[in-house]
Amino acid sequence: MKSVLNVVKIGGNVLDDEQALEAFLQDFAALSGAKILVHGGGKIATQIGEKMGLKPHYINGRRVTDAATLELVTMVYGGLINRRLVAALQRLGCTALGLSGADANLMPARKRPVGEVDFGWVGDPLPERVNVALVKTLVSQGVALVMSPLTHDEAGNLLNTNADTISATLAQALTPDFEVRLLFCFEKKGVLSNPGDDNSVIPSLSSAEYSALKAKSAASGGILPKLDNAFQAASKGVSRVVIGSAQDLHRNLSERAIPGTEIIV
Amino acid sequence: MKSVLNVVKIGGNVLDDEQALEAFLQDFAALSGAKILVHGGGKIATQIGEKMGLKPHYINGRRVTDAATLELVTMVYGGLINRRLVAALQRLGCTALGLSGADANLMPARKRPVGEVDFGWVGDPLPERVNVALVKTLVSQGVALVMSPLTHDEAGNLLNTNADTISATLAQALTPDFEVRLLFCFEKKGVLSNPGDDNSVIPSLSSAEYSALKAKSAASGGILPKLDNAFQAASKGVSRVVIGSAQDLHRNLSERAIPGTEIIV
Repeated sequence: MKSVLNVVKIGGNVLDDEQALEAFLQDFAALSGAKILVHGGGKIATQIGEKMGLKPHYINGRRVTDAATLELVTMVYGGLINRRLVAALQRLGCTALGLSGADANLMPARKRPVGEVDFGWVGDPLPERVNVALVKTLVSQGVALVMSPLTHDEAGNLLNTNADTISATLAQALTPDFEVRLLFCFEKKGVLSNPGDDNSVIPSLSSAEYSALKAKSAASGGILPKLDNAFQAASKGVSRVVIGSAQDLHRNLSERAIPGTEIIV
Repeated sequence: MKSVLNVVKIGGNVLDDEQALEAFLQDFAALSGAKILVHGGGKIATQIGEKMGLKPHYINGRRVTDAATLELVTMVYGGLINRRLVAALQRLGCTALGLSGADANLMPARKRPVGEVDFGWVGDPLPERVNVALVKTLVSQGVALVMSPLTHDEAGNLLNTNADTISATLAQALTPDFEVRLLFCFEKKGVLSNPGDDNSVIPSLSSAEYSALKAKSAASGGILPKLDNAFQAASKGVSRVVIGSAQDLHRNLSERAIPGTEIIV
């Protein structure tokens, strides 16, 4: 029987809220077994960019990564946020090690080809190339991995990569060796059937139901790429994929009746 | 017989010069066996600090690390420089992993007590607490470690730490398990007997000779803390300690007659 490995993704809604972050880190530190924390950015990247005179540049809601932005995210995601999370987990007695996709070739990616939009220094990870041996070595020694949303092209360039995509890529790459559970933490308790009602959490969502939701525009905006990544992971053998609140970390990963939304394929 | 582990420290004179850095990284990538690269900062930290409206603050030639400076060095040393070095080494076929002292508790330190000067968020590493097991695990798998000049206090705080001190601390902590060679790269070929003559390299330097040099002020400024760290490492069982040029990397680490200055105790 394969042992459980938990992959937990947190974004700005947790990172930007000091109290929520501390509560989350305590819960994550207390999680037993193999675990990986994947973090996104947060307001601090924008704030530091502004101090440096940079303005974020978006096309269709996606940030375009020019050279200055790549430098910024390498500093803030790969340095400030990642190293601080590691130091905080160490304080809580959790042995943690911070990584980018370049480290030991953990996650090679392809620079996104220029289509209608040139996204710049953005990478699409190659799941079959994930350095699974490194992950196994570290987690078998009780080290929790803390992964920043950066990959690389193996030609010397770091690449900005969506943290949801990184989470799904890691999760699916590890399924041959672990029973992988993947939790995307976001600002709601789960995917809502009625966006105006925080208590309308959909307990489970199939591909067909997701298509129906999209058709009636009940799921839109930032949740769509998250759901696409969630379905991708679930279709590749990740044993549990949940979208839910960081506050429900343990329940979403461990219980049978979860407070979040389970993705079913 | 213990196997060789090379610890190489580079500073701003290499990091700030694109061609010198590329040549150094090629040499480092080609170095066989277990290896650790320790890097300092460079002009880019000052430049980014200036963009953010920060001014470096020095007392007696030592940078004082206030909260804003700690944030800056965490970003620039722990993020930008460290991740870029890793990506560049991967391009050269060298499997490399970037670390701070917080990662897996690699290097715990004590925040420097406030004396005549309050250095702020500066850490003095605890050599007996280095996570030697982590280093052994990684280098035994052929992973080169890339260490940023950051430690932590185990209470959640990262600490700014001199890269020469980090190098000496790692080197001495690893002597029970490896035949450790330590090379401090700097802007000259070695310690000079006549500071005005670049060819006046002192081939080897004992503690007594070092004291004599200091007395006649032939060694002063930035070289003093480097030499203090070098003698500390040599006195703790590091088998070869050399101060020399990054251009002579292989010769300084491998040859019997070296172009740099060997530290003898």
